[in-house]
Amino acid sequence: MIGYGFMGAAHSVGWRQAPRMFDLPAGVEMAVVVGRNAEAVADAAARWGWQESATDWREVIARDDIDLVDIVTPGDSHAEIAIAALEAGKHVLCEKPLANTVEEAQAMADAAARAAERGIRSMVGFTYRRVPAVTFLRDLVAQGAVGRIAQVRAAYRQDWLVDPDMPLGWRLQKEHAGSGALGDIGAHIIDMTQFVTGLSVDAVSGVVDTIVKERPLQGSGTGLSGTVAEGYGEVTVDDLAIFTGRLSTGALASFEATRFATGRKNDLSIEVSGDKGALRFDLEDLNTLWFYDRTAPEATQGFTRILVTEAQHPYVSAWWPAGHTLGYEHGFSHQAVDLVTAIVEGTDPHPSFDEGLSVQRVLAAVEESSANDSAWVRVGAEVSSPTR
Amino acid sequence: MIGYGFMGAAHSVGWRQAPRMFDLPAGVEMAVVVGRNAEAVADAAARWGWQESATDWREVIARDDIDLVDIVTPGDSHAEIAIAALEAGKHVLCEKPLANTVEEAQAMADAAARAAERGIRSMVGFTYRRVPAVTFLRDLVAQGAVGRIAQVRAAYRQDWLVDPDMPLGWRLQKEHAGSGALGDIGAHIIDMTQFVTGLSVDAVSGVVDTIVKERPLQGSGTGLSGTVAEGYGEVTVDDLAIFTGRLSTGALASFEATRFATGRKNDLSIEVSGDKGALRFDLEDLNTLWFYDRTAPEATQGFTRILVTEAQHPYVSAWWPAGHTLGYEHGFSHQAVDLVTAIVEGTDPHPSFDEGLSVQRVLAAVEESSANDSAWVRVGAEVSSPTR
Amino acid sequence: MIGYGFMGAAHSVGWRQAPRMFDLPAGVEMAVVVGRNAEAVADAAARWGWQESATDWREVIARDDIDLVDIVTPGDSHAEIAIAALEAGKHVLCEKPLANTVEEAQAMADAAARAAERGIRSMVGFTYRRVPAVTFLRDLVAQGAVGRIAQVRAAYRQDWLVDPDMPLGWRLQKEHAGSGALGDIGAHIIDMTQFVTGLSVDAVSGVVDTIVKERPLQGSGTGLSGTVAEGYGEVTVDDLAIFTGRLSTGALASFEATRFATGRKNDLSIEVSGDKGALRFDLEDLNTLWFYDRTAPEATQGFTRILVTEAQHPYVSAWWPAGHTLGYEHGFSHQAVDLVTAIVEGTDPHPSFDEGLSVQRVLAAVEESSANDSAWVRVGAEVSSPTR
Amino acid sequence: MIGYGFMGAAHSVGWRQAPRMFDLPAGVEMAVVVGRNAEAVADAAARWGWQESATDWREVIARDDIDLVDIVTPGDSHAEIAIAALEAGKHVLCEKPLANTVEEAQAMADAAARAAERGIRSMVGFTYRRVPAVTFLRDLVAQGAVGRIAQVRAAYRQDWLVDPDMPLGWRLQKEHAGSGALGDIGAHIIDMTQFVTGLSVDAVSGVVDTIVKERPLQGSGTGLSGTVAEGYGEVTVDDLAIFTGRLSTGALASFEATRFATGRKNDLSIEVSGDKGALRFDLEDLNTLWFYDRTAPEATQGFTRILVTEAQHPYVSAWWPAGHTLGYEHGFSHQAVDLVTAIVEGTDPHPSFDEGLSVQRVLAAVEESSANDSAWVRVGAEVSSPTR
Repeated sequence: MIGYGFMGAAHSVGWRQAPRMFDLPAGVEMAVVVGRNAEAVADAAARWGWQESATDWREVIARDDIDLVDIVTPGDSHAEIAIAALEAGKHVLCEKPLANTVEEAQAMADAAARAAERGIRSMVGFTYRRVPAVTFLRDLVAQGAVGRIAQVRAAYRQDWLVDPDMPLGWRLQKEHAGSGALGDIGAHIIDMTQFVTGLSVDAVSGVVDTIVKERPLQGSGTGLSGTVAEGYGEVTVDDLAIFTGRLSTGALASFEATRFATGRKNDLSIEVSGDKGALRFDLEDLNTLWFYDRTAPEATQGFTRILVTEAQHPYVSAWWPAGHTLGYEHGFSHQAVDLVTAIVEGTDPHPSFDEGLSVQRVLAAVEESSANDSAWVRVGAEVSSPTR
Repeated sequence: MIGYGFMGAAHSVGWRQAPRMFDLPAGVEMAVVVGRNAEAVADAAARWGWQESATDWREVIARDDIDLVDIVTPGDSHAEIAIAALEAGKHVLCEKPLANTVEEAQAMADAAARAAERGIRSMVGFTYRRVPAVTFLRDLVAQGAVGRIAQVRAAYRQDWLVDPDMPLGWRLQKEHAGSGALGDIGAHIIDMTQFVTGLSVDAVSGVVDTIVKERPLQGSGTGLSGTVAEGYGEVTVDDLAIFTGRLSTGALASFEATRFATGRKNDLSIEVSGDKGALRFDLEDLNTLWFYDRTAPEATQGFTRILVTEAQHPYVSAWWPAGHTLGYEHGFSHQAVDLVTAIVEGTDPHPSFDEGLSVQRVLAAVEESSANDSAWVRVGAEVSSPTR
Repeated sequence: MIGYGFMGAAHSVGWRQAPRMFDLPAGVEMAVVVGRNAEAVADAAARWGWQESATDWREVIARDDIDLVDIVTPGDSHAEIAIAALEAGKHVLCEKPLANTVEEAQAMADAAARAAERGIRSMVGFTYRRVPAVTFLRDLVAQGAVGRIAQVRAAYRQDWLVDPDMPLGWRLQKEHAGSGALGDIGAHIIDMTQFVTGLSVDAVSGVVDTIVKERPLQGSGTGLSGTVAEGYGEVTVDDLAIFTGRLSTGALASFEATRFATGRKNDLSIEVSGDKGALRFDLEDLNTLWFYDRTAPEATQGFTRILVTEAQHPYVSAWWPAGHTLGYEHGFSHQAVDLVTAIVEGTDPHPSFDEGLSVQRVLAAVEESSANDSAWVRVGAEVSSPTR
Repeated sequence: MIGYGFMGAAHSVGWRQAPRMFDLPAGVEMAVVVGRNAEAVADAAARWGWQESATDWREVIARDDIDLVDIVTPGDSHAEIAIAALEAGKHVLCEKPLANTVEEAQAMADAAARAAERGIRSMVGFTYRRVPAVTFLRDLVAQGAVGRIAQVRAAYRQDWLVDPDMPLGWRLQKEHAGSGALGDIGAHIIDMTQFVTGLSVDAVSGVVDTIVKERPLQGSGTGLSGTVAEGYGEVTVDDLAIFTGRLSTGALASFEATRFATGRKNDLSIEVSGDKGALRFDLEDLNTLWFYDRTAPEATQGFTRILVTEAQHPYVSAWWPAGHTLGYEHGFSHQAVDLVTAIVEGTDPHPSFDEGLSVQRVLAAVEESSANDSAWVRVGAEVSSPTR
């Protein structure tokens, strides 16, 4: 595993739990975690149960005893590491977003295609696909439960930027983060929409905005002179994106990604409406799926609150009895299960790098639309911008 | 009262109940209801408790014993009737939308301004403002409960067009209805946004769409030859509108008006997010207001479900004890109370015709944006279209 | 109508609205309202739209032009008025609880039986039966939607006595009120249980309690000396009752009636569980019915939130389109509709005085059980107490 | 760890995750898991990551390298194992219920008291105390957030016995299980009530019942003759218990434990009402706590939905950012953390065996009350029954 931040902790839970709770077709050894700070990464390895730590990822991917590379670094390093790992013949799991630019994502997808010819597998970490309720939502759509899709309404709402005193961290600076709410959380609702509907977002119109434009500089002492940064600096990424997508069938989908939805902590919601029914999901209540069945008797139609904790629901039988809920982290175990299974069975896991690239293209198209008075932009036809 | 459809029933409840439940500063006599079909309008008068019925609205507004004209006809006749009534010195309550075009709405607002100089009052029937939870939401925003508004998320979702066999009624034909979901239900969320925030929607970008483009002609036998209409006809109004507004402070607001949200019956929802808190409301649960207070102690922050049935909540003390809920129709009583009070007290009631006109302008701007690749259109600067 | 308190207002809405919104088989004239205070009752008549007011109920029930007597006085006068009215050949609607004692209730049921032989109808006002969602719940149970009933869970929770400074009003004094939470709100959940299940509560075990035992005397000047009551007085009725009932099939039902459920304003809830499904209802959300269908496909089972506002739902077609909600007061209109219809059609309306008596017997049995260490008491076999 | 059923899996997650996510004051080695079937327990050890497996628990507790014994066997073996382990100087974690009878529980509590004098710690596994929302509920009560407690309403509702074809497993036979819904899930709501209120249940009145009295015998071929069990056998434990408790302050608490609440999967709910506020929790939505604050401004009072995922909430900072939810299993990690911490710090962990004993006494008192016409039974004064 390359990287050891918050995502490193979550991926570690996935690797630790999956072989203990599921019947995997192969064993999992948590071999080595890699980071630039030797002491910190050694601490992480000890805490999370990795056998070793290392500071040079190139050395690690060159090792014969490494089969799989899990990349959880910031987005700007994904392309270099993932391409190198694939070329070294390692299967790759890469945290989302696939990259910070379409060009990088394209290069990664190309590398993945070449590697696939040699039986090397790659996967991008849109873990929310593997929340059981989301997987089940997708299954129900695929089985025709909502019929022909008329519209989709998706939002990802957080509120951690509402506080104007929140300092200007690296996530708020374009040169480091590439994008703000759009790329970080907007990416999830684009992927989830494409995943659950089986349709692609083909064109977009939208606007990105920065609500609080200046924030306090982080006051850590810096530089040779020991001066402390003071005053305010400019926020150079979006903190709110509102956009509309045209799906491949012509249906419209509305999207909102925001960090200013006061009181909404991690509120990804999606609703798929069709001529036979509707399905909706909310990440803050992740064991629940709501299903409206228009084919039921009229007088008793309504949204049914399905507690997705039954043995017949996706992934659930490996865990606890009915009514015993799962949490955020379980998707990381499911991701590990599916990736290991695909590798052993010799199939290509999903979401593929191509799917990650398609999300990246939608993000770029949204930015281009926003820069062009919200004119509609065809996904894939966007003029790529320097940062995307 | 001119007109006697569904809105006539609702307005009649308002006029019937208001003087019985509230201390009005003047009495209310339900004098005469007007319609073109003498027999049908006589039936309506008898059923709803109007003293008389009539077929010629011009005669009625000329009567000395009529003080107030309540217009509940389709939108294309609003301007003619309202302007005539105002010029005849009658106070006017006009059902929303104010008119089918900006030009008509402008003429009505001009007539209202002239009438106001003579003490004649006019009001447009955006009744949802007077759901107690909505009025209270506005009051809380005005008191600073959410602080500076960062964003608004509003939607009005119904599903009565999901059925592809729903016939091509007049509401689905542009020449009669003027507009579809946008003008009928989109108007409500625009007005509510402006009402509760105290801000105006200054520019918009959006798209309107027609999901089911052909519908069965209504098969009622017609004409001397007794032929029955057969086959399919074109739906010429939108059934889905998604748009983004720029408020006068620069904050963004997202809007969705749809008749294809399967399972959503009459689901107007609004959420106002600010740096001190958030407020949200849902019309399908109309006695409830949700309030998030960022100034509360951190560990116990959350959305508070306020049951807006306490005596200190707007309008409630005239009705029932705490916990005894109100319904859809009560807003019509509150509208009657506020209008009668304003007339007696000599003040201008709200929403004024100017406020109705401002909604009309936003609607026209959305249509223009949609026709122009979703480019942003400044409200009031739109090139008016023939139907709006 | 005899009486003009809070219930008088609610019944007046019912009589006023029913003939305007429903097709009644006979007209309704709101003839005369009766109260002891001539001025106050005249005000009530004027406000609520009754043609006359009067102070002597005996005179009124003797009038030939009166067909129906609606009794909304406190419970201790129900028996005398109702029996006199029935004997005078008037149909009677009597507000719940039917009486303050089983003896009185029995005498009223006997009088109703005698009157029925002469075609005179009587009905007790358990209006919550006529909330559309409750009627529909009963219909679904009767159709077998829950199968064989395994258990019932019912509660009526309010919080208006939580405040220790709430003064010692007449409702808290046994000599005036007869009973506290048990008789006032416990009666509702007993009746609703019997109504929706079609089963009788045959035996009970339970406890009643008084949480705050002393309260401030109400400081109204009293007596010749003009002294103001000061200090504290004893609360002589229960404010909390918890009891278990054995239904006629042997199934158990749990009941709780309380005025100390902080934050619960008017929260009547009931859940009926059977081998084919379950149904639940909550009065604070009265347009909604939750239905769990065990015969549905396993993976999509869950509680379905039915918005009971469709035209095919009970009573709804007379009101508004789907999704337009009703409130507390609409049950009073439905009660008027059903009573007038029964009178004209010559059938006995429900709930009958016998049904009211059966509730009274359960209440008495609960009090007896509580007084006897919560021993089980067969309903109808209770040793009747002086106050019940 | 002695035992390796469903609870073995859950405890294993706790031991596996706790040292990886929390800063423990001592390391945790998952040494040996013990079961009677050598092959099966070896499989469990391999799967769950225990270093060894063994078949003789007496040998294991005699080992010098074992510090802590975790007992997850059925209740009838708890006393023997726990007492032996304590006498062997091992710290003990014993799954709930502490034992199948009061006598056994008493003996265990006595052994724990003796062991405590030697610094040996013991703890009973009421893990739901350590759901963050429950711990936080307790903290808020302790801080006075609800004021003086007026009443408690607790229920634990499941539905897995609704199906009449569910076979007669060991859990439905008194000789093996001791008790049914009462002892298994009723125990949880008794413990939780005592935990969150800080009060004891001092007396009870109640009824236990068996709704489906006969069930199909499990058809596994058995015995030398190879005969298959056929036909129906008697269910000898309760499947529904409804009881009322008198708390040490005199306040009443209502309890319901059932396996016939159709549609309720694992629905433990509790509501604590006091003169300053109320708190409620529902296990099917375990990241949420509802708080009603009567000291807030009246017009904005309501139940606040607190998402208990903030860093300042109990246990949460070790896991994920705000809004990222936890699940059922996390309580087992928290239990491990608190037990290890107590052992290292030399303090007695909670719930102690004395607390487990107190729950056992309440259970016995409920059974005695049920057998005595629901007469009130003082907890601790019950005549103990053979099976409890």
